[in-house]
Order: sequence, then structure tokens, then C-alpha cells
Amino acid sequence: MSKQQALEALWRLTYGMYVVSSRAGDRMNGQISDALMQVTLEPPRVALSVNKAELTHELIAESGLVGVSVLAPSVSKETILLFGFRSGRDTNKFEFVDHREGVTGVPLLTKDVVSVFEGKVVERVDVGTHTVFVVEVVDGQVVKDGPPLTYAYYQEHMRGATHKNAPTYRPVPVKKETQKGDRE
Amino acid sequence: MSKQQALEALWRLTYGMYVVSSRAGDRMNGQISDALMQVTLEPPRVALSVNKAELTHELIAESGLVGVSVLAPSVSKETILLFGFRSGRDTNKFEFVDHREGVTGVPLLTKDVVSVFEGKVVERVDVGTHTVFVVEVVDGQVVKDGPPLTYAYYQEHMRGATHKNAPTYRPVPVKKETQKGDRE
Repeated sequence: MSKQQALEALWRLTYGMYVVSSRAGDRMNGQISDALMQVTLEPPRVALSVNKAELTHELIAESGLVGVSVLAPSVSKETILLFGFRSGRDTNKFEFVDHREGVTGVPLLTKDVVSVFEGKVVERVDVGTHTVFVVEVVDGQVVKDGPPLTYAYYQEHMRGATHKNAPTYRPVPVKKETQKGDRE
Repeated sequence: MSKQQALEALWRLTYGMYVVSSRAGDRMNGQISDALMQVTLEPPRVALSVNKAELTHELIAESGLVGVSVLAPSVSKETILLFGFRSGRDTNKFEFVDHREGVTGVPLLTKDVVSVFEGKVVERVDVGTHTVFVVEVVDGQVVKDGPPLTYAYYQEHMRGATHKNAPTYRPVPVKKETQKGDRE
């Protein structure tokens, strides 16, 4: 196969934009993720893919706790850069944003989110560079009305870059999909 | 927790709309899915959640082969109803749509798709009512320019319903998210 063609086929998948967070003892961290989906309804479970090199991976692996803040389009580029491109190993990211502790103790954003939820890991699957965690949701709330931030919106309207550790990493930001000749 | 609140928080996740297909010997089938995401880049792998009651689940479990057709917004409501609400146990769904065989033998749509890809199962995870299959992508192509069909677009512009076996099943179609008082 042409590997490039296969990758471009995968770029057509649709994603949201989330801050995935965790806590282990006194340590907490969060990072931008798009690789997250619901996998069962009863009980409500989600799956997410996290790069093994990330601090958030370390905290989830240790505590089994996961928080998800579903970002709103009103979120600032600075917040995305903070959670997407700074490392929690040298920055206490949650010092810079409004947040609260969930019932499991994980930090959850309180501003520029449409909803939040949290849960406990019930399965971990080694998929190579990443671990897929299956998380049973134990609590969640809608925070405000309105559509969520999508990855497509981030790319088109916020000139969004993607961290190299993301499963959906693309070497250059994608231009508007309706333009001919994009990605060439 | 309020279970209803947690479910509504999960409804804010963003999804695309795909026909997930498989083949085992002479038997082939496909179904609508939104629960699909890329989980690693190198090698390219995706994860998808499929209800154990589905014929497509049976075929994937038997052959380990998965095809994904990434739907375009031009797809007809009839095609979505065919793949989303008819059972392959009494309907040969692919008789009704243009398709081709991929390199693995799985059927892939050739019309009203933005891209297609196919692969082989490398992990299967029992998550209760569903199995999460991790699939290594072996081939893929972009079919046409333009944005993919999203679940939000389907809900807002095609009055989309969701099959009860979907992990993201909602009892009633969701109204436009920008309206106040929706889902009440």
C-alpha cells in the first residue's frame, strides 16, 4: 500500500477536543486529546488512547482515575497550547486555569467546557506506542449549552497544530477541507 | 451521581459516521458506526466498538478483517437506514450500494464516501455488551475532497436516529445544540 494514502484516509475521521486529566496522590496533570469515544452505554464506558511517554499516562496507570473536560469553542488558544504542548513534568498546568476536583479527585476544567465526566479504568490494552484505557464513567455533568469544540474547527479556525505524541498527528496543519489541492 | 446527567455529558463527545464492514468466507456485511478512532500512528491502528449482537461482530470475530467507509455528507438517508437499521441476517445490504472489494476482501463503499481503509484485528477487548477491536490498517485511500459526514450534521440536518445497539444510543434525536432547552 501507499502508507501516505492510508494515513490521509485516516485523517478523514472526526474527533472532538478534550482535556484528559488524572491524579495520583498529590500529583495531577492533564493533556489535550482527541482520541476518545464511548464504547458501551450500559454501563457507560469510554475508551481513550494515551501515549506511554506522557505524564498523564503515568498518573492514569498509577491511580486508574480519568477525568475528561469536553472543550467549548470559546476555549483560548493559550489553554490548548498549555495542555497540548507543555509538559506537566515542568509545569503545574492546573495553576493557570479555573478547575475543580471531581468526586474521584481528578481535576476538571470549569470554564470553556460544555461538559465534564470522570471515571475509573476497567481495562488497559497495550497497543504499542499508546495504551488504550477503558474507563467506566462514575460521574458527569453538562456545564453549558452549545456545541463542543471539534478537531475540524480547531484546524480550520484556530490554525491548530497537533502534538507529535497524538495518534492523529499530522506533520502540517490541514487547510480547509473544501479547498482543492489541500495537503499537497 | 445522576446517571442521566452523566449520559448527557457523554452526548457532547464528537463523532463521525462510518460504515464498518467485514467478510468471513462468502458472507459479508456492514453497519453504521460512530464509535471509531485512531489509537496509534506508527503503525497506524484504529479502535472500534461493535455490539456483540451484530452480524458484523460475528464476521469480524471470525475473520479478523475490518473495512471502514468514511461517509460523505452527500450520502442518502436510505443508505444510512439500510446500514444502520436493517439486519444483515435477512438483507444482503451490499446488493443495494456501489462497492468494491478491498485488498483484504472486505466490501468498501465507492460512492458518497470521502475515504476508505481496511485492516486486520490485532487485539480484541471484551467491554461488556460490546467488543473493542484494535485494527492495524493495511490499506486505505482518499476517495474525494471535502469534509466527512459528522454525527452532529446527521443529527441536525438529516433528523438522524440511532440504533439501540450503538454505544452512543440516545432515546430521542437531539435537537440543534444551540437551542436553549434542548433534550428536556
